[in-house]
Amino acid sequence: METTMPKPLSPELHKKSVNTIRMLAVDAVENANSGHPGLPMGAAEMAFVLWSRHLRFNPQEPRWANRDRFILSAGHGSMLLYGLLHLAGFDVSLEDLKKFRQLHSKTPGHPEFRDTPGVEATTGPLGQGLANAVGFALSAKMLAARVNPPSGFRPLDHFVYVLCSDGDLMEGVTSEACSIAGHQKLGNLIVLYDDNQVTLAGKTSVTFTEDRDARYRAYGWHVQHVADGNDAEAIDRAIRAAQAEKDRPSFISVRTVLGFGSPGKAGTPEAHGSPLGKDEVKKTKEKLGWPLEPTFLVPDDVRAFWASRIEELRGLHEQWKRGVAQWEKEQPQKAKWLRAPAVPQDLPEQLASVVQGMNAAESTRKIGSAVLQKAAELVPALVGGSADLDTSTLTYLKGGGDVEPGSYAGRNIHFGVREHGMGAIANGFAYDGHFVPFTATFLQFVDYMRPPVRLAALSRLRTLFVFTHDSIFLGEDGPTHQPIEQLATIRAIPFMETWRPADPVEVAAAWAAALQREDGPSTLVFTRQKLPPLSRSQPVDVRTCLRGAYALVEPKLAKGEEPELVIIATGSEVATAQQALQALRPELAARTRLVSMPCVERFLRWPREEQRRLLPHDTKAKMAVVEAAGGLDWYRIVGDGLVVGIDRFGASAPEKALAEAYGLTPQKVAARIQAWLEQGAKANA
Amino acid sequence: METTMPKPLSPELHKKSVNTIRMLAVDAVENANSGHPGLPMGAAEMAFVLWSRHLRFNPQEPRWANRDRFILSAGHGSMLLYGLLHLAGFDVSLEDLKKFRQLHSKTPGHPEFRDTPGVEATTGPLGQGLANAVGFALSAKMLAARVNPPSGFRPLDHFVYVLCSDGDLMEGVTSEACSIAGHQKLGNLIVLYDDNQVTLAGKTSVTFTEDRDARYRAYGWHVQHVADGNDAEAIDRAIRAAQAEKDRPSFISVRTVLGFGSPGKAGTPEAHGSPLGKDEVKKTKEKLGWPLEPTFLVPDDVRAFWASRIEELRGLHEQWKRGVAQWEKEQPQKAKWLRAPAVPQDLPEQLASVVQGMNAAESTRKIGSAVLQKAAELVPALVGGSADLDTSTLTYLKGGGDVEPGSYAGRNIHFGVREHGMGAIANGFAYDGHFVPFTATFLQFVDYMRPPVRLAALSRLRTLFVFTHDSIFLGEDGPTHQPIEQLATIRAIPFMETWRPADPVEVAAAWAAALQREDGPSTLVFTRQKLPPLSRSQPVDVRTCLRGAYALVEPKLAKGEEPELVIIATGSEVATAQQALQALRPELAARTRLVSMPCVERFLRWPREEQRRLLPHDTKAKMAVVEAAGGLDWYRIVGDGLVVGIDRFGASAPEKALAEAYGLTPQKVAARIQAWLEQGAKANA
Repeated sequence: METTMPKPLSPELHKKSVNTIRMLAVDAVENANSGHPGLPMGAAEMAFVLWSRHLRFNPQEPRWANRDRFILSAGHGSMLLYGLLHLAGFDVSLEDLKKFRQLHSKTPGHPEFRDTPGVEATTGPLGQGLANAVGFALSAKMLAARVNPPSGFRPLDHFVYVLCSDGDLMEGVTSEACSIAGHQKLGNLIVLYDDNQVTLAGKTSVTFTEDRDARYRAYGWHVQHVADGNDAEAIDRAIRAAQAEKDRPSFISVRTVLGFGSPGKAGTPEAHGSPLGKDEVKKTKEKLGWPLEPTFLVPDDVRAFWASRIEELRGLHEQWKRGVAQWEKEQPQKAKWLRAPAVPQDLPEQLASVVQGMNAAESTRKIGSAVLQKAAELVPALVGGSADLDTSTLTYLKGGGDVEPGSYAGRNIHFGVREHGMGAIANGFAYDGHFVPFTATFLQFVDYMRPPVRLAALSRLRTLFVFTHDSIFLGEDGPTHQPIEQLATIRAIPFMETWRPADPVEVAAAWAAALQREDGPSTLVFTRQKLPPLSRSQPVDVRTCLRGAYALVEPKLAKGEEPELVIIATGSEVATAQQALQALRPELAARTRLVSMPCVERFLRWPREEQRRLLPHDTKAKMAVVEAAGGLDWYRIVGDGLVVGIDRFGASAPEKALAEAYGLTPQKVAARIQAWLEQGAKANA
Repeated sequence: METTMPKPLSPELHKKSVNTIRMLAVDAVENANSGHPGLPMGAAEMAFVLWSRHLRFNPQEPRWANRDRFILSAGHGSMLLYGLLHLAGFDVSLEDLKKFRQLHSKTPGHPEFRDTPGVEATTGPLGQGLANAVGFALSAKMLAARVNPPSGFRPLDHFVYVLCSDGDLMEGVTSEACSIAGHQKLGNLIVLYDDNQVTLAGKTSVTFTEDRDARYRAYGWHVQHVADGNDAEAIDRAIRAAQAEKDRPSFISVRTVLGFGSPGKAGTPEAHGSPLGKDEVKKTKEKLGWPLEPTFLVPDDVRAFWASRIEELRGLHEQWKRGVAQWEKEQPQKAKWLRAPAVPQDLPEQLASVVQGMNAAESTRKIGSAVLQKAAELVPALVGGSADLDTSTLTYLKGGGDVEPGSYAGRNIHFGVREHGMGAIANGFAYDGHFVPFTATFLQFVDYMRPPVRLAALSRLRTLFVFTHDSIFLGEDGPTHQPIEQLATIRAIPFMETWRPADPVEVAAAWAAALQREDGPSTLVFTRQKLPPLSRSQPVDVRTCLRGAYALVEPKLAKGEEPELVIIATGSEVATAQQALQALRPELAARTRLVSMPCVERFLRWPREEQRRLLPHDTKAKMAVVEAAGGLDWYRIVGDGLVVGIDRFGASAPEKALAEAYGLTPQKVAARIQAWLEQGAKANA
């Protein structure tokens, strides 16, 4: 797609346009009495050059597939973005800007995906946006490899632009992601680094003296430096050079002044995260030759400029649409890639058919691997990889090919030992919305990637997080690798769905549920060790598993009678609990229900009455849960019931020795439950 | 301290010594049928050169203050370390090596601090060890600045050596920590990078093609390259050059062959994480000219060499002791720094006295700041800092001075926006044991630093983690910055103690508890917002707070009567709950106990009966908890009781609007509790 250059602005109008962005930010922060004026003031020039001369978008269709993406990684400078969105015609009004940082506004403190048209990603936790952008850029390359013809009209050729800050570069997640970006030769990624030499708490000289440019060169990036962040032409030249560089991502460090224009606070930490204050606002406006009133001023000629620019860009979009319409006739299959991924409605049944008849002892990671292969066949948009653990997580898509530098037709992404970067990159794919990304590592290492896991939930992204080696039963690697509290910490995240399946059909359900959940992330948790097959009196329907909980063993009771005991278990402990049933007193065993609960969150969405039918809390039935984990999260299910879990760190030892030492053999589980019941009986006697 | 050079070994004995290390690892992994032989085989040469010619230690006194530290960041190569510890005379026997990876052995799968003499840090989760080492090195510099005289005998002049792998360098935590190391000019830090070009899942060419040497130069490090990892003299020269470089940390990349000596597996991922297998062991031993039997062979002349080397080093230690004895006479105060930090027994009372009389509305971060200043005065070993948030966390030690490049007498460490590196560096201080380190950031960002927070608990380190801005009530920054599930995820970590104090005396107790807890980490959680003072009928003793829970409001009941309702609250919600009492029906309010529970973990250690006296579960009393957080963790305390918390993400808005929207005003809390009680009464009717 051609870039249309807008007509050159007069120097005066250019300056006024840049100051409009500055002053909208100043006024909004002042009005909210909260926020970060410094970054928008310092970065307004480069943002204006980028948005007015380069960025291709259509404010009426903010999700146009071939728009350029702009990600404000330094999310605290949100008013820069909101101001630009307003000026560029997105559905962000002056009234919205006046509600900056107020409840349920379109202009929250940090940009939030889905809340505001034109916001590509939720940013604010530093480093995430830049790492997401690597995902956007890789996604774009992979999409182009699937869509673009070798010659002629190219439906996809957009850039991914990022504006980032010192904090973004200090965070390790960007080191991880940017190393991948360099390796993968993401020439479509252009990062503008707002080098303002000031952080919240002081000057960067206090702690951030590394040679950033040299570091990015070491990652294999194309690096440029702009000495004056108010030099529009130098910025423009650097952006053009970056666009021309096809094989390397571009890093443009732009020397700016935080809070530019504020006579008393420019270049100091005071300009960073607090309103300038009434007096300083006045002085700033005077210095920049800006009227004191009205606030939230957008001069008419600035409006007129943007109107004409929007019109130009609309024309570009129309031209693209015509090209696509023609191309789509020739390539109807390929054109589907421009829309959201399709997932078959009967995916649960199709995946369940893969595992039908599997009844030898097997690990759920291995079963998961078989299911994943079929899922990949049925959902071409499914792509992903592991943090250097393919041979352990078993998540390699066979026949899917590798995503390699300069060659993006494959489906397997190699993230290296970079869990945090992996999670944030996967979120970038999910934000962009053309692929369904998955990540994989050991469950313990969710600790290395908590921020993107949480942000996937906050932004309601279809990111799939696969974790294998899900308990102490991974064995000899010991406590540094054995999750204890991790399941609880994932289940604690609002809006996350966590699956810990117990057998083949539950594994199929877990993958199907995750893939069909369009507006939120899922976590899939698998064992390293082999599990004995469950004994099922009749096969369970995959749709039953999809509900998150069901009775695996139902005692034969007279009508209206309640069970005496309900044991709930997940994953590897379902088999343990089923064997434990044999070790209970026969009279008790005969009155015990065993519930498999592969997804607690789905169970929690059942109507209360239905929940109580499965887990009859208000009767004399006692509840116990068995899970080889910390168990903190289970009391909300069993109330005053018993949690048979692990209340300390693991140990390096073979699996069987650990089951004994941690009381998780069927015999020990049965004995523990019985002792607890007897104690309760005694206390009530 | 002088380095004594051991007498040069014959080439044959040298080779035999190196192969001994290799073969101990091969045999132990084979014996355990689990483990990682590849790294020890490839890195044995450099490890032997370092340990036999440079490393200063005394196996009989493994915690000698001026020993050189050796940290195996690539913890999966644990048999390299265990083999060296055995050979070098530490209390690790051949029998211990034969119990590699068995339950309760001294030789767990990954090195664990406290389990094995000579293991300086728990490693295995990649990147942690190298980042810890930056903490060791900075701690050493800071200790030396406090102890060493300007001239003459210097009690402290050791090096911190690290052996790390590709995975360590890929993890973002090392980017963060090593940038700090370069900034701080840690010339005492020497990193040997085992550049074996192979990772678990493949070749580094698949994903790790950045220029590592250039990256470390960009961080301000002294970088060397050794082309042949079996060239002892080249390694030796590089180590000497690194020692001579005083102002920069040293990075020595050493090109090795993973699994060196294995004819079939050397240089392949197969050598990484699995036993070689019987046949391949045989071929390897044949190739290296090693007897097939006995396994775990240490040739006599190798033993004899180590005996003489240990003797030399013992002499060095004796010489140091004599120097110290003399010096201690002149500098008895300074000599105390060589021992573990002293914390006054009456610290709780002394800290409580600081806050006495504070009864205006104030944030707990502000109160915490006042307490911290006093704590710093009473505990000179207390040092720390924030991730670029001093002005928000209020944790700057006034008058403590800054730790600056080349000038280490200060107490305030500036970590930059590097939470993960901060946590791991702080753990390095705690492992070394001469300082009590604290870190500080917003509670939300514990997500960025989970691995070191967990490892502090696993390794039982006195690391203090301060987190401010502890709930949605931080306000306008919005959901990306508002913790919901974070409290639960920290409380879920075994062995962690988490404090969320409600008022000045509880803040004093929290700091005192954390500082006095010698064998484990504490988390201190403070508010951003001001809290109304609690209404106390009489002042509470700080020792009562130290117990973790107590009745703040006790209803006047007849003897033997139980309260009708017990409300538990923490932190900012204690005041809310107290105000909510006023809004309850008066008959109910008169029969309600309000419990403040600043530290759940301490309460959980009470004898069961005492717990039940405060929270009378088995009676008709109803339990409710109020905490502005996810609440997942509270059901273990209140069982089937009510948790008034937050079950979704936060929102960007002023504090008061959030309290209304999330049902956390006193009126709404009271109404919610009453409605719940009435519903329960109806259900029972």
